Amino acid sequence: MTSDALTSYVATFVDGLVSSGIADVVISPGSRSTPLALTMAECDELNVYTNIDERSAAFFALGIAKAKQHPVVLLCTSGTAAANYFPAIVEAHYSRVPLVVVTADRPHELREVGAPQAIDQVNLYGKYAKWFVDVAIPESSVEALRYIKQVAKRAVHVAERGGQGVTHVNFPLREPLLPNLAEVHNFFEERREERKKVSERIGSQADVAYVEQLLERAEKPLFICGQQISKEGSREIVALADMLNIPILADPLSNIRTNKLVQGVVMDSYDTFLKNERVAEELAPDLIVRFGGMPVSKTTLKFITNYAPENFIMVDHTLDWRDPTGTITDVIVSHEEFLCRSLREQCENITFSKNWLSKWMNVQNITSDLLQQAMDNTEELDEGKVVVELQKALPEQSLLFVGNSMPIRDVDTFLRKSSKSLDVLANRGANGIDGVVSAALGASTTYHHSVLLIGDVSFYHDLNGLLAAHLNGLNLTVVLVNNDGGGIFSFLPQAKEEKHFELLFGTPLGIDFSNAVKAYHGSFHKASNWADFRHYLEESFRTKGVTVIEIETVRTKNVETHRSMWKDIEDVLNEEKEK
Amino acid sequence: MTSDALTSYVATFVDGLVSSGIADVVISPGSRSTPLALTMAECDELNVYTNIDERSAAFFALGIAKAKQHPVVLLCTSGTAAANYFPAIVEAHYSRVPLVVVTADRPHELREVGAPQAIDQVNLYGKYAKWFVDVAIPESSVEALRYIKQVAKRAVHVAERGGQGVTHVNFPLREPLLPNLAEVHNFFEERREERKKVSERIGSQADVAYVEQLLERAEKPLFICGQQISKEGSREIVALADMLNIPILADPLSNIRTNKLVQGVVMDSYDTFLKNERVAEELAPDLIVRFGGMPVSKTTLKFITNYAPENFIMVDHTLDWRDPTGTITDVIVSHEEFLCRSLREQCENITFSKNWLSKWMNVQNITSDLLQQAMDNTEELDEGKVVVELQKALPEQSLLFVGNSMPIRDVDTFLRKSSKSLDVLANRGANGIDGVVSAALGASTTYHHSVLLIGDVSFYHDLNGLLAAHLNGLNLTVVLVNNDGGGIFSFLPQAKEEKHFELLFGTPLGIDFSNAVKAYHGSFHKASNWADFRHYLEESFRTKGVTVIEIETVRTKNVETHRSMWKDIEDVLNEEKEK
Repeated sequence: MTSDALTSYVATFVDGLVSSGIADVVISPGSRSTPLALTMAECDELNVYTNIDERSAAFFALGIAKAKQHPVVLLCTSGTAAANYFPAIVEAHYSRVPLVVVTADRPHELREVGAPQAIDQVNLYGKYAKWFVDVAIPESSVEALRYIKQVAKRAVHVAERGGQGVTHVNFPLREPLLPNLAEVHNFFEERREERKKVSERIGSQADVAYVEQLLERAEKPLFICGQQISKEGSREIVALADMLNIPILADPLSNIRTNKLVQGVVMDSYDTFLKNERVAEELAPDLIVRFGGMPVSKTTLKFITNYAPENFIMVDHTLDWRDPTGTITDVIVSHEEFLCRSLREQCENITFSKNWLSKWMNVQNITSDLLQQAMDNTEELDEGKVVVELQKALPEQSLLFVGNSMPIRDVDTFLRKSSKSLDVLANRGANGIDGVVSAALGASTTYHHSVLLIGDVSFYHDLNGLLAAHLNGLNLTVVLVNNDGGGIFSFLPQAKEEKHFELLFGTPLGIDFSNAVKAYHGSFHKASNWADFRHYLEESFRTKGVTVIEIETVRTKNVETHRSMWKDIEDVLNEEKEK
Repeated sequence: MTSDALTSYVATFVDGLVSSGIADVVISPGSRSTPLALTMAECDELNVYTNIDERSAAFFALGIAKAKQHPVVLLCTSGTAAANYFPAIVEAHYSRVPLVVVTADRPHELREVGAPQAIDQVNLYGKYAKWFVDVAIPESSVEALRYIKQVAKRAVHVAERGGQGVTHVNFPLREPLLPNLAEVHNFFEERREERKKVSERIGSQADVAYVEQLLERAEKPLFICGQQISKEGSREIVALADMLNIPILADPLSNIRTNKLVQGVVMDSYDTFLKNERVAEELAPDLIVRFGGMPVSKTTLKFITNYAPENFIMVDHTLDWRDPTGTITDVIVSHEEFLCRSLREQCENITFSKNWLSKWMNVQNITSDLLQQAMDNTEELDEGKVVVELQKALPEQSLLFVGNSMPIRDVDTFLRKSSKSLDVLANRGANGIDGVVSAALGASTTYHHSVLLIGDVSFYHDLNGLLAAHLNGLNLTVVLVNNDGGGIFSFLPQAKEEKHFELLFGTPLGIDFSNAVKAYHGSFHKASNWADFRHYLEESFRTKGVTVIEIETVRTKNVETHRSMWKDIEDVLNEEKEK
């Protein structure tokens, strides 16, 4: 569709609703909702009902949805029109009837400025909407269309699953409000076959059968595992992947990378080898099943976005729809343990060509070896090598708590898969650098040996948190990578803009941490070389209280080392391809 | 500035902050906030402080603001960074310290999809922010820049006046995050003189002096009066305008158009004559003072937007900033009565040329006469003429309650200024067509004679409301203009799109209202000509309970009549110009 933003955005939204199984829409007349109303009326597969009084309209839609046991869409204009839906929405909430409420709204510049017929519609129905979204103003970019399609699917999905109820999509629209109906018509014709592929699964056995069917059709399946996977879940995922020869991208926080169960199917170096475009292209999957939260690796995010397969399933415990790439095609609400065990019982006749797995293992092995070599050859103090040294030195069953920003990325790159169990934890809900010391101390209460790997800015941010160790008699080894400022900013585009850089981003702290640590009754050591480091680390495991081991690095040098290592690996992988 | 959206939008925002008197900004380092941080650092007039821990940063800003008694800006990145501001924000709220909190945020497509470092920042500080706005994604259109400039001014304004406190601007930003600093630099240089014009008024006498000074400098001042002006206020506004020869655009809901006080300075036909571009250009003011809510007239809105003067003051009881045109330059929080009385005492030496007022009175008189003639010549039933007939027939001190959509627009066009007092009311908070019957019945409780002028769709919407009249012994004359559907849509662009038009917009109701009215114990009459209409109207004033007088009109004919009348008037005004 080569049309204007309004036409393509609204048509894609309506297409998304119908693709998700919507067949009925109840429209109340209005001006601001014109583009949505016209586009819905243009879609042959939709039964369009009109009802002037929005209060009646909503109860009418409720009646259809109750009778059909299937979500119905409501559409009205901005202002009190939307408020008239409220009684029926409350009824739908308590009687668990699935409704997708679409309200047109004024664009941002006409909100709360006394514009006519504009009320604050954000979260208008409060807790009575299971999900509310105030969508972006229409645009025609690929990303915008992907986004609005996902909004439509999610609105229907959330309304009909996990306790049926109401979802509310608030739709800001600018004038002019007339879509190009001829283009809408052609678009709907082109997409007709696609829309028929509506999946009508309800219930968990249907989910299992659905994934089994996708696996049967696939030739190049891939599993991706992030944080928040239970130990039982990770056991079942690995067993299933091992049985079927499916490669797993195992995030360091996934419970799969450093675990007794670890197998050949587990990949740990993908953040490095998927940077190589030729490798990535060759490893493009035709089915992805993602478990747990988003992985740390940005390279993987890019890989998923660029090579999004036709079927991309997310298995999650809730319908939170955690997919910033906008490429998932379906969400399965299930515990990963239950789903994978059931699949293992039912997929006995499926096997994938060893060739597919071999391709992955080949680059994985080369890359892993090269990373190992690079670290073996590093004599000076280096942020990456700290991870390698820690993995060697930490006793079985220890806790490795990882700070955000650079440390978690280094752990993703340098923590090798290993049957020596380590629990790797980090605050990856909102990825803040704040509160990390306190969170690590909290976690340390259930481990024999606990190490926190953290940068200086983040350590400073929660320096106060150290007091709790003294007051509560806790033991923690803090490995403080001190590059005197915000190291991650040297990897970002603003590093090229030298003006204001140190003031705004580098922010050298110039703190002598030894004094601060003493203030909180901790031990402090500065390691000048790796022998020192190993020594202090060993010693800390035998010492009560907090031990801080500082390693001084240089921000600019760190960027150079990382980049030159990645470049070297890229070259080797390219040579490998050309053989 | 011919730059990209990010650069111009962010620079305009920062320029708006500084123009409003901001001198200090406390920045915590982060990635998402990069464009704002760099642009602020580039502005010579800003003292930039950096503070890594956002909790400390916010208290640091609080300290500056306390000491200076002047708003300070805080800037941080997305995620928990913003949550760290909370303790200081709560303190600022209770100790009334003005802070403008600016938080960078992910764009809409990365919200609530599990994207890293993205939390829900909408209304993050709840009631502790006096004003919260989630601004639009950067754009470089004139409207977008006007919008973001107003946001900046409003954020500072609201923080420092009417009980000092915290305002929160949430700023979604897309990658790439680097503005063009060279362009920012040039833009700030060009605007340097403008930024110096910071007004430092505090207190109401300073406001009076400020408006006096603007009046002294003006040559072509204009008053605009909307709804929500008190009777005392309208008396003082008219007296001031009359003393100084300032024309007043008097909305029908302003308490000024149909009022004993009415004077030559009061204009009632502007919605018609300002449609003429040549007239509008000649009447462009160099100062506007607006009182009350937005006027009904869309033509006036366009006039204000196209000819926005250098100084455009809004006088309002609160800082709600009701200006959808984005062209006001200052808000004065004052009761209009107090402000105008003070000005009348202090402006005795100011007089404006009669020539300016004469220009207005000239087109006003011509237009008013032509509207009157057009109605005098109309024999058949017509939606405009109903207003003229009502104004003639209604006794002094009556209530005219007006439905939304077409009736209020017809009242704006056809209700003449007159010393016969009428109270004209309408639901213009959110302009809904719902609940109008009930609202009119409520209002009728304090009048001897009450008339509701309403269309059929709106009447149907609250038909149930009629029961209250019977139960509570209320008297109301309902003049029902029945054009069998939504008449206003025939004036909108979708009328050209015939496909689906009647289904979605025309929505003919096909209701026989006589039966419905009987059901609620009311009297019903259908007027077939004006003599009938006058007769039934007179009779209704002597009848208890609800009387509904139906006038049947034709939607398409109504559009034609309105348009041809406006065309005729435009022609006469053009001839007048050419004389």
